[in-house]
Amino acid sequence: MDKAIGVIDSGVGGLTVVHELMRQLPKEQLIYLGDTARCPYGPRSKEEVQQFTWEMVDFLLTKNIKMLVVACNTATAFTLKDLKEQLDIPVIGVIQPGARAAIKSTTNNQVGVIGTEGTISSGAYSQALAKIKSNIQVSGLACPPFVPMVERGVLSGSEAKTVVTEALRPFSSNKKMDTLILGCTHYPLLKSTIQEVMGEEVTVISSSEETARETSTLLDVHQIMNRSDLVPLHQFYTTGDLEIFIEIAKTVFQESHFQMLTIKQANISTNKVW
Amino acid sequence: MDKAIGVIDSGVGGLTVVHELMRQLPKEQLIYLGDTARCPYGPRSKEEVQQFTWEMVDFLLTKNIKMLVVACNTATAFTLKDLKEQLDIPVIGVIQPGARAAIKSTTNNQVGVIGTEGTISSGAYSQALAKIKSNIQVSGLACPPFVPMVERGVLSGSEAKTVVTEALRPFSSNKKMDTLILGCTHYPLLKSTIQEVMGEEVTVISSSEETARETSTLLDVHQIMNRSDLVPLHQFYTTGDLEIFIEIAKTVFQESHFQMLTIKQANISTNKVW
Repeated sequence: MDKAIGVIDSGVGGLTVVHELMRQLPKEQLIYLGDTARCPYGPRSKEEVQQFTWEMVDFLLTKNIKMLVVACNTATAFTLKDLKEQLDIPVIGVIQPGARAAIKSTTNNQVGVIGTEGTISSGAYSQALAKIKSNIQVSGLACPPFVPMVERGVLSGSEAKTVVTEALRPFSSNKKMDTLILGCTHYPLLKSTIQEVMGEEVTVISSSEETARETSTLLDVHQIMNRSDLVPLHQFYTTGDLEIFIEIAKTVFQESHFQMLTIKQANISTNKVW
Repeated sequence: MDKAIGVIDSGVGGLTVVHELMRQLPKEQLIYLGDTARCPYGPRSKEEVQQFTWEMVDFLLTKNIKMLVVACNTATAFTLKDLKEQLDIPVIGVIQPGARAAIKSTTNNQVGVIGTEGTISSGAYSQALAKIKSNIQVSGLACPPFVPMVERGVLSGSEAKTVVTEALRPFSSNKKMDTLILGCTHYPLLKSTIQEVMGEEVTVISSSEETARETSTLLDVHQIMNRSDLVPLHQFYTTGDLEIFIEIAKTVFQESHFQMLTIKQANISTNKVW
């Protein structure tokens, strides 16, 4: 089994999933596509997100991937069901792993979720949680400024602190919440700031880390784990600006990981895939 | 899908898995069989463990289970591969989930594993870890006194502290180890003592908690999650002493959970299953 795992995201957020995949599954080769040119997906309509996601998937299918990781919460919320039904390779999204980790973590069943407008208004986390455990109280909060800020490369410092504090204000009065799900793969890039604002007593769940672990489980279940000990060479594609993508990738990956990847520009559209 | 999940163990250790299954998958009905009469499995031969495990599985198959959780590390080490090949329901063991959690947790790739003689000498954890990540340094240590002590109901206090301190002495000089896998489902019942002896800086991984989470993943993948919101009534069987089993179950489960289960005695043998 020497095929690669395909990873898609609306932009650079999915790199946090990739970072964890590299760490937790170092033998696996990854092919990543970030639709930076059309990011953010959060405020887009369901139909638009579905169309863009399928265009990304079609691009990766030409690379002969063995499994697909939808490393974007908005895309997961709107397309996971269809993708699972229509693709003949295993597909994993970021919502169910995050929900499961929150269920394991919470001791008082008071869980918060932050994400894009699309993810929060879809109710995808509430549904995923309720499907498994009925008595979980879920508070959802959309944080629209986070993704554009991360895509500009602002990950910490006073601007980040101010924006995060302001966005999370509605949660500051909820003293009971013991677990907060980062329901957008861009948000782990702001994790230390978010943890600081929420306080030590709240467990912050990164759906990126959890998705990497479940990817490992699925490779096992489907018996498609890579057995070679060769160092894999990863391929990264962005539909947008190459330079800023490389800058952010350098922030996400350690030097040793960064050397293992090539970054290229990709053009995707409904009619044109290469 | 209103069938139950079957759980087997050599004795009461698997109750720690059940406790987590109840907490993380409260809609699922469980049928548990503990082979207390023939516990511990640790010092037994591979052939004997395989025979006993199949006798337990045959008993649970008569209960029409939809999935099997092998909540015993020794049985997982010696029979998981066969069970997966020969049963037409999903099967999960406790070793892979523990290994995956350790890979996620460790930052310096120095991992310790404690378990029964059978589990440690089988090298099952080293293999599971190496399959995913080649550069993990694994130190294994068999702790034979733990299981009989737990089966007697000694879970804390001075006897437990003395026995645990003595058994873990070989690890006291390994200052680099940052993660310790409890590679036996009896050991989470001694977790606080083990954590105290190992020190705060070591992350102690309970394969029980992780197995419950991966069970959730597998129910999802196979689309056999229970959709009813009715409170499930669990069934517990022991091949050994009913009173001591009930005593230990009371320690493991909170009052509210304990009320949700019935405990019965079971006789299993190669020729006689009911």
